Amino acid sequence: MWLRNCWYVIAWDHEIPAPESAQLFTRTVLGEPVLVYRTSDGGLVAMEDRCCHRHAPLSKGRREGDCVRCGYHGLKFDPAGVCVEAPGIPIVPAKARVRTYPVVLKNRWVFVWMGDAEQADTALLPDNFSCDHPDWKHQPGYLHYDTPYLLICDNLLDFSHLSYVHEKTLGGSTQIAQARPEIEPVAGPGGDWPVMGIRVSRQVADVPPPPFYRKFRAFDTNLDRWFIYDFVLPATLLMHSGGRPTGTQGQDSGQTVRLHSCQTLTPETETSTHYFFQQSHRADEGDDSVTESIFNSLVVAFNEDRDMISAQHRNIALNPDVPMMPLAMDAALVQFRRLLAGRVQAERAATGASDFPPVLNATTATSAT
Amino acid sequence: MWLRNCWYVIAWDHEIPAPESAQLFTRTVLGEPVLVYRTSDGGLVAMEDRCCHRHAPLSKGRREGDCVRCGYHGLKFDPAGVCVEAPGIPIVPAKARVRTYPVVLKNRWVFVWMGDAEQADTALLPDNFSCDHPDWKHQPGYLHYDTPYLLICDNLLDFSHLSYVHEKTLGGSTQIAQARPEIEPVAGPGGDWPVMGIRVSRQVADVPPPPFYRKFRAFDTNLDRWFIYDFVLPATLLMHSGGRPTGTQGQDSGQTVRLHSCQTLTPETETSTHYFFQQSHRADEGDDSVTESIFNSLVVAFNEDRDMISAQHRNIALNPDVPMMPLAMDAALVQFRRLLAGRVQAERAATGASDFPPVLNATTATSAT
Amino acid sequence: MWLRNCWYVIAWDHEIPAPESAQLFTRTVLGEPVLVYRTSDGGLVAMEDRCCHRHAPLSKGRREGDCVRCGYHGLKFDPAGVCVEAPGIPIVPAKARVRTYPVVLKNRWVFVWMGDAEQADTALLPDNFSCDHPDWKHQPGYLHYDTPYLLICDNLLDFSHLSYVHEKTLGGSTQIAQARPEIEPVAGPGGDWPVMGIRVSRQVADVPPPPFYRKFRAFDTNLDRWFIYDFVLPATLLMHSGGRPTGTQGQDSGQTVRLHSCQTLTPETETSTHYFFQQSHRADEGDDSVTESIFNSLVVAFNEDRDMISAQHRNIALNPDVPMMPLAMDAALVQFRRLLAGRVQAERAATGASDFPPVLNATTATSAT
Repeated sequence: MWLRNCWYVIAWDHEIPAPESAQLFTRTVLGEPVLVYRTSDGGLVAMEDRCCHRHAPLSKGRREGDCVRCGYHGLKFDPAGVCVEAPGIPIVPAKARVRTYPVVLKNRWVFVWMGDAEQADTALLPDNFSCDHPDWKHQPGYLHYDTPYLLICDNLLDFSHLSYVHEKTLGGSTQIAQARPEIEPVAGPGGDWPVMGIRVSRQVADVPPPPFYRKFRAFDTNLDRWFIYDFVLPATLLMHSGGRPTGTQGQDSGQTVRLHSCQTLTPETETSTHYFFQQSHRADEGDDSVTESIFNSLVVAFNEDRDMISAQHRNIALNPDVPMMPLAMDAALVQFRRLLAGRVQAERAATGASDFPPVLNATTATSAT
Repeated sequence: MWLRNCWYVIAWDHEIPAPESAQLFTRTVLGEPVLVYRTSDGGLVAMEDRCCHRHAPLSKGRREGDCVRCGYHGLKFDPAGVCVEAPGIPIVPAKARVRTYPVVLKNRWVFVWMGDAEQADTALLPDNFSCDHPDWKHQPGYLHYDTPYLLICDNLLDFSHLSYVHEKTLGGSTQIAQARPEIEPVAGPGGDWPVMGIRVSRQVADVPPPPFYRKFRAFDTNLDRWFIYDFVLPATLLMHSGGRPTGTQGQDSGQTVRLHSCQTLTPETETSTHYFFQQSHRADEGDDSVTESIFNSLVVAFNEDRDMISAQHRNIALNPDVPMMPLAMDAALVQFRRLLAGRVQAERAATGASDFPPVLNATTATSAT
Repeated sequence: MWLRNCWYVIAWDHEIPAPESAQLFTRTVLGEPVLVYRTSDGGLVAMEDRCCHRHAPLSKGRREGDCVRCGYHGLKFDPAGVCVEAPGIPIVPAKARVRTYPVVLKNRWVFVWMGDAEQADTALLPDNFSCDHPDWKHQPGYLHYDTPYLLICDNLLDFSHLSYVHEKTLGGSTQIAQARPEIEPVAGPGGDWPVMGIRVSRQVADVPPPPFYRKFRAFDTNLDRWFIYDFVLPATLLMHSGGRPTGTQGQDSGQTVRLHSCQTLTPETETSTHYFFQQSHRADEGDDSVTESIFNSLVVAFNEDRDMISAQHRNIALNPDVPMMPLAMDAALVQFRRLLAGRVQAERAATGASDFPPVLNATTATSAT
């Protein structure tokens, strides 16, 4: 079960064609097909990608000005989702309309609000500043997973996996797994959202520079590394990380690496997920080759994750009733699942639904499916 | 749920191998595997393609005269489905037999009756005359769909889609969608079948010749076009269509196009369908290149349909509980679904089953799955 | 439903990498992923291939001495399945362990015991002597099936199919199907296992040498052939077969063929199966080319089986409720299914489960799924 009253990223800005393009962009979010297009005034429209008449995808039709015409029987919808023309029908029924979704562009991420439109609140958008900031440079990434999104949340909430899954890419030392992170709540905007997520802070002293750093810079000492990230609802990671020559804290060093990463997961269906990501470096600390090197390393590493999580998912699917065993390293993921479960429960209570979602229990394998 | 006491096309005549061939033809109809072969006297046999012993397909065995021998343990069945030999068993049990189905060849279509054999009635065969008539020429076509057959019935019962799905092939004008067709019942042979289907008549005046006409003939004027078809149970379209230079009704013109089309849908499984089709032109109005041009255009157009209907089906599968919205253009498909539902209900009542099939409700998406 | 307290073959000996290899071997048995590796002292370990923590496959991790480390978060397990290290956790919880399975190597087959380890009894291992015997030579074979294992048991329990499925390979005469085999119980080691299987003895006199014999030897007479095999629980065939020039019984002849075959089926999932097999000839009756010829013929023949059984399985899946029709030739398979059902029932009764497994009824199609 998914949280609905929140923002999910549906696309990178550059994925949505220009208004004059014949292409229509569609992506499934929370099991619903969603069409996104730009109006001539530069605005964005997010619309149910399903004609109200016979359920054909509108994305198989065409743009007509700021409207979209269904390619099956020709119904035409305006940007508010109202059917403004139905061929052969002089007076279009008022109820002929498709749903539209609140949509916001923030720092190159296109967010949609899949729940109650009246509750859409831009104060709940994450601070993905480095996706579009002159001081930071990155290449944008996207990956599709055939696993439930919560398994990927779990992965991102426990960086001990860097020592093993990413031994030869992002990791490079078992010290990362040995370090005990600090875990704190992340305050939300208040009201229904006193807590928005979990902050995980991990310091690792005197370790070899990780392989992916070495691809864009030479080092002659060990590093002190840090990973400080907020993992906020529904499923967004915002991280400052980096490494400085061991024992140089407070000093400036040409070898210090400072990165900021924004990553977010959007459920496509119960068992598939969209993954949007970038990891930025300071604009004044590296040229395009550095940007490209970091992106390429990230792609390799995130395929390592996907390979592992897909294998984990196959195992869970084989024997879904076997319980998992929570360990100390799961503190952040357990807290996040509890936070999420509370929000889903509150959302359901507000709409009259009453079941507590077992899906969010982190100690059973079924929790992840 | 399917109507069972009726004729379904299982094959074009030419698909069934000659008696002397080693090949055995099999196709699944209404979820049942059916073997069809020719006997030495030129007759046809339609037989359950499943040995009564261990359910191996008989089509993986071999012909022995007019009998078929199972390729697994060697049981031999005569054209009546009776097991006439079981290796090592001196006296074959009388109940060792497979089902046979009434089978009829009419105008090159091979029809099987999947319901109660005693009710098989050739008066219920459609008049697919142009499939085998000296005055008409065509190339036969077959297409496989991975969608429920009713979604394709819907498509054929509302030609407003010609303006959009087939804009660049069969359509060529939004006037087709604008025109309001006449809809009438088609009388059946009487008895249990007072009504056999729905007649849809659509006239479109003064429109450009459709792209597919232009591929085999040059025109110097607009056309008045007509589409007059019966869509009869279980799922057969019989259509006269054509176009004449605008304003020449009643006159003879070298530019007039006269076509007759026979198309029929046979459910393979709940979610897949066989589609047999042809569109004939008058034998004295075009040579083989015209025949081929029309066939090629039809294949392109029917792939346009399949592409759209498959996308519609994926949308329905994502959210099967969302209701559809009936509009005026759905009159024929709603009437046909109602007719079909009535027949299925009657058939079930006659066999003691009592549920009204929700599958036939045209206003819900689930109706189509 | 599967019998659990018995030995299943998980691999040929040569499939398990040497201790110094970086490779880890995994195979799913009875729906459970199982890791098998060799310890430095030459022993074998069979271990649940699923970390107790988050269910990642251990086979995606790495060997560390005689231990295995999970590649996700680094938990390390010793050969007893005990977690001996969890990164960042000073005191590993005692319950952090994965299951291990009794594992035995016998004549090149690696057997695992998937049920209650305390009941593991090597007296229940089959006598697969020819898999590793100086007097016999073979090439080992493995085939994967996407069908339930019981359909393959059925196949092996009724050799009348040799006349039809293997007409051009192992069969060569309809006399095989005509012959009525003797069927007897095979005694078990006693206790809970008074009967271990079914013995099937089939003699076929004066038939042409089968095509696969002719591939490695020339014959100038017909043969008397014999097939004498035990089919023992859970699903292992142990067969002496051969052929001698007709009428030469008791005499020595250079044309006599003497073979011993060991074949065994291991359920992977409800609908897929591992098939391990070999057919040996006497070491003093043929060189390597004979060994290879027999192996190649077996591969061709067993693909004929798989093709037929897969088609049978598709038919059963289409209409699972249609009953099968038992015939005299099914005597052995019916008796074996009854024996198996009894053992499964006893095993369930011993663990408190009470349902009689309908899965073992040989007269319904559902019995096989």
